[in-house]
Amino acid sequence: MTERVASEELRAHLDGRWGAVRDAARTLLADPRFVPSLGTVDEQRTRTFDRLRLLADAGVSRLGFPKEYGGLDDLGGSITGFEMLAMGDLSLLVKAGVQFGLFGGAILQLGTSPHHERYLPDVMSVALPGCFAMTETGHGSDVAALRTTATYDAGEFVITTPDDAARKDYIGNAARDGRAAVVFAQLITAGQERGVHAFVVPIRGADGAPLPGVRIEDCGPKAGLNGVDNGRLWFDGVRVPRENLLNRYGDVAPDGSYSTPIDNPARRFFTMLGTLIQGRISVAGGAGSATKVALAIAVRYAEVRRQFTAPGRDDEIVLLDYLAHQRRLLPALARSYALHFAQGELIAALHDDFGDDERRRPLEARAAAIKAAATWHATATIQICREACGGAGYLVENQLPRLKADTDVFTTFEGDNTVLQQLVGKELLTAYRSQFGELDFLGLIRFVTDTAVDTVVEHTAAHRIIQRLLDAAPGPDADLRDRAWHVELFEWREKHLLDTVARRLRRAGDGADGFAAFNATQDHLLRAARAHADRLLLEAFVAGIDSAAPSLQPLLAQVCDLFVLSTIEGDRAWFIEHGRLSTQRSKAVIAMVDSLCGELRPHASTLVDGFGIPDACITAPIATRSGAARG
Amino acid sequence: MTERVASEELRAHLDGRWGAVRDAARTLLADPRFVPSLGTVDEQRTRTFDRLRLLADAGVSRLGFPKEYGGLDDLGGSITGFEMLAMGDLSLLVKAGVQFGLFGGAILQLGTSPHHERYLPDVMSVALPGCFAMTETGHGSDVAALRTTATYDAGEFVITTPDDAARKDYIGNAARDGRAAVVFAQLITAGQERGVHAFVVPIRGADGAPLPGVRIEDCGPKAGLNGVDNGRLWFDGVRVPRENLLNRYGDVAPDGSYSTPIDNPARRFFTMLGTLIQGRISVAGGAGSATKVALAIAVRYAEVRRQFTAPGRDDEIVLLDYLAHQRRLLPALARSYALHFAQGELIAALHDDFGDDERRRPLEARAAAIKAAATWHATATIQICREACGGAGYLVENQLPRLKADTDVFTTFEGDNTVLQQLVGKELLTAYRSQFGELDFLGLIRFVTDTAVDTVVEHTAAHRIIQRLLDAAPGPDADLRDRAWHVELFEWREKHLLDTVARRLRRAGDGADGFAAFNATQDHLLRAARAHADRLLLEAFVAGIDSAAPSLQPLLAQVCDLFVLSTIEGDRAWFIEHGRLSTQRSKAVIAMVDSLCGELRPHASTLVDGFGIPDACITAPIATRSGAARG
Repeated sequence: MTERVASEELRAHLDGRWGAVRDAARTLLADPRFVPSLGTVDEQRTRTFDRLRLLADAGVSRLGFPKEYGGLDDLGGSITGFEMLAMGDLSLLVKAGVQFGLFGGAILQLGTSPHHERYLPDVMSVALPGCFAMTETGHGSDVAALRTTATYDAGEFVITTPDDAARKDYIGNAARDGRAAVVFAQLITAGQERGVHAFVVPIRGADGAPLPGVRIEDCGPKAGLNGVDNGRLWFDGVRVPRENLLNRYGDVAPDGSYSTPIDNPARRFFTMLGTLIQGRISVAGGAGSATKVALAIAVRYAEVRRQFTAPGRDDEIVLLDYLAHQRRLLPALARSYALHFAQGELIAALHDDFGDDERRRPLEARAAAIKAAATWHATATIQICREACGGAGYLVENQLPRLKADTDVFTTFEGDNTVLQQLVGKELLTAYRSQFGELDFLGLIRFVTDTAVDTVVEHTAAHRIIQRLLDAAPGPDADLRDRAWHVELFEWREKHLLDTVARRLRRAGDGADGFAAFNATQDHLLRAARAHADRLLLEAFVAGIDSAAPSLQPLLAQVCDLFVLSTIEGDRAWFIEHGRLSTQRSKAVIAMVDSLCGELRPHASTLVDGFGIPDACITAPIATRSGAARG
Repeated sequence: MTERVASEELRAHLDGRWGAVRDAARTLLADPRFVPSLGTVDEQRTRTFDRLRLLADAGVSRLGFPKEYGGLDDLGGSITGFEMLAMGDLSLLVKAGVQFGLFGGAILQLGTSPHHERYLPDVMSVALPGCFAMTETGHGSDVAALRTTATYDAGEFVITTPDDAARKDYIGNAARDGRAAVVFAQLITAGQERGVHAFVVPIRGADGAPLPGVRIEDCGPKAGLNGVDNGRLWFDGVRVPRENLLNRYGDVAPDGSYSTPIDNPARRFFTMLGTLIQGRISVAGGAGSATKVALAIAVRYAEVRRQFTAPGRDDEIVLLDYLAHQRRLLPALARSYALHFAQGELIAALHDDFGDDERRRPLEARAAAIKAAATWHATATIQICREACGGAGYLVENQLPRLKADTDVFTTFEGDNTVLQQLVGKELLTAYRSQFGELDFLGLIRFVTDTAVDTVVEHTAAHRIIQRLLDAAPGPDADLRDRAWHVELFEWREKHLLDTVARRLRRAGDGADGFAAFNATQDHLLRAARAHADRLLLEAFVAGIDSAAPSLQPLLAQVCDLFVLSTIEGDRAWFIEHGRLSTQRSKAVIAMVDSLCGELRPHASTLVDGFGIPDACITAPIATRSGAARG
């Protein structure tokens, strides 16, 4: 059996580069003023807004903004801090994400210094609560097709909602608190459409009433996150000064002439969106933290909850001793570790490379892949944890219902997961060709047809270790726990799927119906994106083991084994179908997952303790000593 | 392409034997007084209780009770009516289930005529609101291990909660409305323990205050079903008259002597529980109806919602035209059809055979298998529907959040699904041997070791058609849509899994550690139970097609094909590993699921309309004409 390791040591390793930010967040989360509590929708909204100000007072909002406006210029710290916040009140998390990340982030990334000077200090202090008004009722995923217009007219932009399908929808901060919004609209000047641009538009006066021409409607109660006031916005010829265009990537001169540093409209559009990458990574981190809290509750309950007596034993059996229970919780826990390392790597890369457009671009697909993987993992795992806690898991006091309800929309917002996976698949195919629209089927098909597609897989941070493992080139009879075999298998799957997609699209390229060709390939494209995410996770895990203290490595290697083998088990039909797994070996994988569950079972508590969730964030009676004793 | 069929014709067929009850329920559901609405927990509870009385006034509660006490003696109608109610307010459904099904059902099944005369009229009229106090904090699934005691003393039973782990927990109707409870407790008389028996125990006086010795605590808010007042009960030496023992299966004479018609204590216990089978079937039906509502919303939205433009087309693509979207919704819809037929068959069997112990017993495992299958299907499908509706699916106004939250506990209550599956697996192995406890590992192992286990699979209603199909004995190269191949494959899988479990247990039989042997086999046992459920579903579907009008059969056969092939696809690794599917054929299964999705896509609306959900139950703006137009 692997030596027991101290959870503190594990935590220090998991905390990584922004350990200080994590510790500061832990202190903040322990503050009674931040402990999640219930109430009516109105009470939740009021409390969330009050807490948003407390966050600002505590300086949390400063992390991600430039020093010259009072910020701390620490992008990685800002995303890490956001991730930690998700161990507590998720409404506050999302409210902060809207105010500082989306509203403030759009002004920072799409605006220029006059905007920064004018707005950023008030964004950070919450003196100016704001919205990020991108999504419309009719168009969520397809941002390029938004239909709100901003028409230049005599020194002003006229913002108009042409019809109900073009109203801004699900906009956080809109129903109650927002005073301004960054509105994404089709810019029209000198009779020409210039594509989607962003504008700062005041929506409420000092008295809190909507300004003339602005109509605001409450989206009403949601499954969760009811501390966030989502609303709908209509603009009826609302005029804003020319200076309210966030003009970093496109500007309109007083005479109405348009200028841009990026001539290609599609490239300009995707560059603009690309600067907002932080949102996706933040959601992935938030999903990760919420999942960790759920796992901690379910594991702690499973460690004390007993049910049914075994023959020859006097006491009843602890839930976590059942193999079926281990199989519910431990592979999910292992994947949470993989996601943690992948998230940390991505944050570091973004922190280091954000300013460099060429280096930042590849991170966009990575962020999309990890966002989809992390949020679907959260949805599935929190559900598993709820069920694993039985009736107790259904009570709000045991936290799981709110964790489920609050995170459920994470698979949708900041990019619907399915759409993101398509984006990832396409990016992998084209090695980033900015001339394509997000779902320009025909363009993609032509490109694939005309080009010798290079599906060479690019490695992330751990590239040297990974290359060394690949060079070891294990055969098909490698030990099931041979890391080199894992790495080669995951890489082969991704490459094979991409090759298949390219081949299919090329074959379909002659036909006229681009949609039919896309549709017939969509499933493979999504699968390739999933395989890509799995590989990213594995590579990050390998790097995470490599950088760990020797005392931690055996345990982490076991967790990685479980992550890999349960992933292979889940997709073993595909591996068999493609000649990479014999049926005999496939059965051996299943047996090995069983063994690994048994091996890791004694370490389950250590592994959840390693997440370093503050005690204040685990209030569930079933997961605390006094409450669990009853069970 | 299959001819379009009228949804009315489809509905009439799906309505089946209790069509009149379904229509009456539709009328009731259209009554504005029953339309679900929101509010605080208190408001929801008050409204739910008021509606419970309206249900009673409408005579709904009379269906399942004997005519001599004012009932209608229509068990099948009662369960069907309950199922229909689940298209509306799910809190009301569960409150009615507690009052009429559990509280009333326990008095009816476990009591004798004096109890019936005294209580049933007031149960039906809700003059006596009651609880079903079985589950304790410490023991939910393991009912035999309950620790509340009922000690006979001088003409009375003394009901006592020995400690906090033995308090009654999650008890519906307890926190606010219940005046009495059927309390399950260990009967002790003349110094001897006689196992779990049920007692009618008054818990509140006419003023609504708890009676002396009764402590009641509110479980507080839950993920959903907040119109139901779940609570905890402690009994501190509460004395009830000897007559309050529900004495059908065990009685105590005034002198304290115990008598029973079933000497074997385990058999007595399982006979008692077996009479309460109705609850499980009802939950399965409720889960089915809620799933249908979710599918109807998601399909209607997917029929009008457009996103992204295809090349060569002017308009944007309707969501349901995407293969990935079809693959999310249509296999789930097909499985809902299979479950509908299986549920209908089970209700009919129960209705016809309830009075006959020998014929009722096999229905218990069937009910358990279908309950687990239906409730997990609900949890998964409602989640899929939520995600398929994007941000709109997260708004309460679009119903999916409440459908998800309200049904989430269905996988847990009336028997935790995992525990139920173990029960099913064991029943299949032993062809019902009532001498085993629910999880008597050692007994099971000894039995399997000593006996030539007969894993002959027993067929349900459709046995003649099924036998005819099996006799057709298609080879491994049968057409993928050959029903005989489907039937043979599903049956073979179940039988093979059972054989494997029996072989493994027999091998482990010599070892001393019964738990280790059980644990190593648990996964196979659960898998066998799942395979069993799939076979039940398929056989019911075959019968459902057979009894349909010829005009409906082609469409239903396509739906059945999709149900079968998507099920095979999901488990294709296992079929390949066990030599029943070549890798080539496995890939063909995947392609066939794609084709079937395309074939059924034009019928998707007809298929959800066929469920006959009253318009009043689909209030989601995204699924109604006026709201959908905005999308």
